[in-house]
Amino acid sequence: MSATAPILLTPGPLTTSAATRDAMQRDWGSWDTEFNRLTESVCADLVGIARGGAEYVCVPMQGSGTFAVEAALGTLVPRDGVVLVPDNGAYCARILKILGRLGIEAIALPFGEASAADPAAIEAAFARDPRITHVALVHLETSAGILNPLDEIAACCRRHGKRLIVDAMSSFGALPITLDGSGVDALVSASGKCLEGVPGMGFVIVRRDALDACEGRSPSLALDLHDQYAYLRKTGQWRFTPPTHVAAALRVALDQFLAEGGQPARGARYAENCRTLVDAMRALGFEPFLDARVQAPVIVTFHAPDDPAYDFKRFYDTVRDAGFILYPGKLTQLETFRVGCIGAIDADDVRRAVAAIAHAIETLGIALRRAS
Amino acid sequence: MSATAPILLTPGPLTTSAATRDAMQRDWGSWDTEFNRLTESVCADLVGIARGGAEYVCVPMQGSGTFAVEAALGTLVPRDGVVLVPDNGAYCARILKILGRLGIEAIALPFGEASAADPAAIEAAFARDPRITHVALVHLETSAGILNPLDEIAACCRRHGKRLIVDAMSSFGALPITLDGSGVDALVSASGKCLEGVPGMGFVIVRRDALDACEGRSPSLALDLHDQYAYLRKTGQWRFTPPTHVAAALRVALDQFLAEGGQPARGARYAENCRTLVDAMRALGFEPFLDARVQAPVIVTFHAPDDPAYDFKRFYDTVRDAGFILYPGKLTQLETFRVGCIGAIDADDVRRAVAAIAHAIETLGIALRRAS
Repeated sequence: MSATAPILLTPGPLTTSAATRDAMQRDWGSWDTEFNRLTESVCADLVGIARGGAEYVCVPMQGSGTFAVEAALGTLVPRDGVVLVPDNGAYCARILKILGRLGIEAIALPFGEASAADPAAIEAAFARDPRITHVALVHLETSAGILNPLDEIAACCRRHGKRLIVDAMSSFGALPITLDGSGVDALVSASGKCLEGVPGMGFVIVRRDALDACEGRSPSLALDLHDQYAYLRKTGQWRFTPPTHVAAALRVALDQFLAEGGQPARGARYAENCRTLVDAMRALGFEPFLDARVQAPVIVTFHAPDDPAYDFKRFYDTVRDAGFILYPGKLTQLETFRVGCIGAIDADDVRRAVAAIAHAIETLGIALRRAS
Repeated sequence: MSATAPILLTPGPLTTSAATRDAMQRDWGSWDTEFNRLTESVCADLVGIARGGAEYVCVPMQGSGTFAVEAALGTLVPRDGVVLVPDNGAYCARILKILGRLGIEAIALPFGEASAADPAAIEAAFARDPRITHVALVHLETSAGILNPLDEIAACCRRHGKRLIVDAMSSFGALPITLDGSGVDALVSASGKCLEGVPGMGFVIVRRDALDACEGRSPSLALDLHDQYAYLRKTGQWRFTPPTHVAAALRVALDQFLAEGGQPARGARYAENCRTLVDAMRALGFEPFLDARVQAPVIVTFHAPDDPAYDFKRFYDTVRDAGFILYPGKLTQLETFRVGCIGAIDADDVRRAVAAIAHAIETLGIALRRAS
């Protein structure tokens, strides 16, 4: 079955290694000591990858990454908090939506879909509205693939005494992150992204003292991060049935992550994948949407060909039949498509994918303006 | 690895078949048509197993079963609703806790931990408090293993115009359920229970017209059942990243469920497992906690041996070393332990498990009063 499965060039779920999938070949008792140890070691490694030091703890959460983001916001932000959301894409908009449901006042600070969040503009927003208590930042906005300057924004929050919650869904593991000394309250990511596990659980790496202050605050029982942590600390177990196979796959994915050389090596492989992709796509005549200075080496948005013969669905299906899954665009104004650089793939896979794209363009008779 | 993994005699996660685990050996694009078709076929089969007919739809939900229960309550019950909760165990208490977090008034109707919920008492509660709008019923209370009379309670709700939401976590697939004509608003279960999939997703089988009336009501974005369904209907996709491997395993588990002969065959196998377990345990001197009339063939609670040589942890570890995972008791007053009858196991596995229990009792020098 796996031999014929296509390679996923998507921002998660992504292509995993055979070893990671093999880890799902056994069943685990969720109450058993062996599984408790697995959870503990996964959490310890995640804090280590985040360079969290002794101040931070990791709380796993069932569900997709968005569940963990909502759990962090709903547990950590008091109902009378005011959250500034630097906005440059769909995942920022999702945070605004979550805050709206939670009944927490949110202030969007728009940067468009092509620009990184600007620390100076965030500082100006603090000056305009001193009621702001928190910032909720998307580190890597997957909509276009933009990297936002986490360290500068964290420094700015520290200077002004604002609390910072970071959605690092698509950056964690691939890009350098140091929580220790950053003042960040919480950082959220998930199993099925740059750690190359399978999807099904998220996690929040959170300052223990920030979390300790939040007992009973969450309006949701399932998404109560404090309760999940308190139970985990007391029993070694998740409060409710954990996705045991997903957690076991993450354990083995982390083993491979560490053996590869951790974040620097993972980031370097993805950066090479990204360079290879952009160079080969440019040679075909495709232009990346983003300026190279804000492009993260995780997912690249390309302008769709300006030719009536282009139809995303047909293009997608043709590339898919050649064994590669692309990703639709997510920009509000322009027609684009996206290609991921992450997962258990290397530059050779990327080259083969671009060859499949070239073949699809030819088959479908799509004209591209060559880059001069 | 799987050859040495213990057999789980637990109420989920449970022992799955090799075919079900093999289904996790490939990666799926969550946007891809092939995965959309998988989701659609899983949902259609689940409505079929619930005998839902055209009135009902199935909405999958990321996370454990509790996440789906909270999604159903938070989406379907208006904030000014009043929910009666027949209470005979920990999962009923969990529903009360969820309603408390949601700010919905709940009335507990206690039946103790050893008795089934009584439709006459529910009817009397309706008469005492006409403000009651909903009943939230646990079909099979896993705390002790009690089966509550769903059909009678549904009839009673129909007569009095009360809406009924059913937590069928541990019964769905094993015990007969017919939603068509039942008036039930929603029934909740999960992948890793009697359908013998792996844990990681729940689902709600819900009357379409009840769900259609709930747009924007959920206080949670992640757990908004209406939004999840609306997006699924529009795009064929889950709103947020689905646990693709878990869903693929459920698809293959459902194939086996249907090939085995559906609920009647699954229920008969579990009933035989349960009879075999109770008979063999009685022969050793263990007494089931529940009266046979309310004992569901899913999980059996046994009184712990009344001997100072008994210690659950040592007993558990000894049985575990012989290859079988037991489950701790969950009763508030008595010392008990539990043994599950569900999963990809048959009466021979149960006999071998009881032999391991007998060996542990002997090894640990625990005295049991023989049944006369």
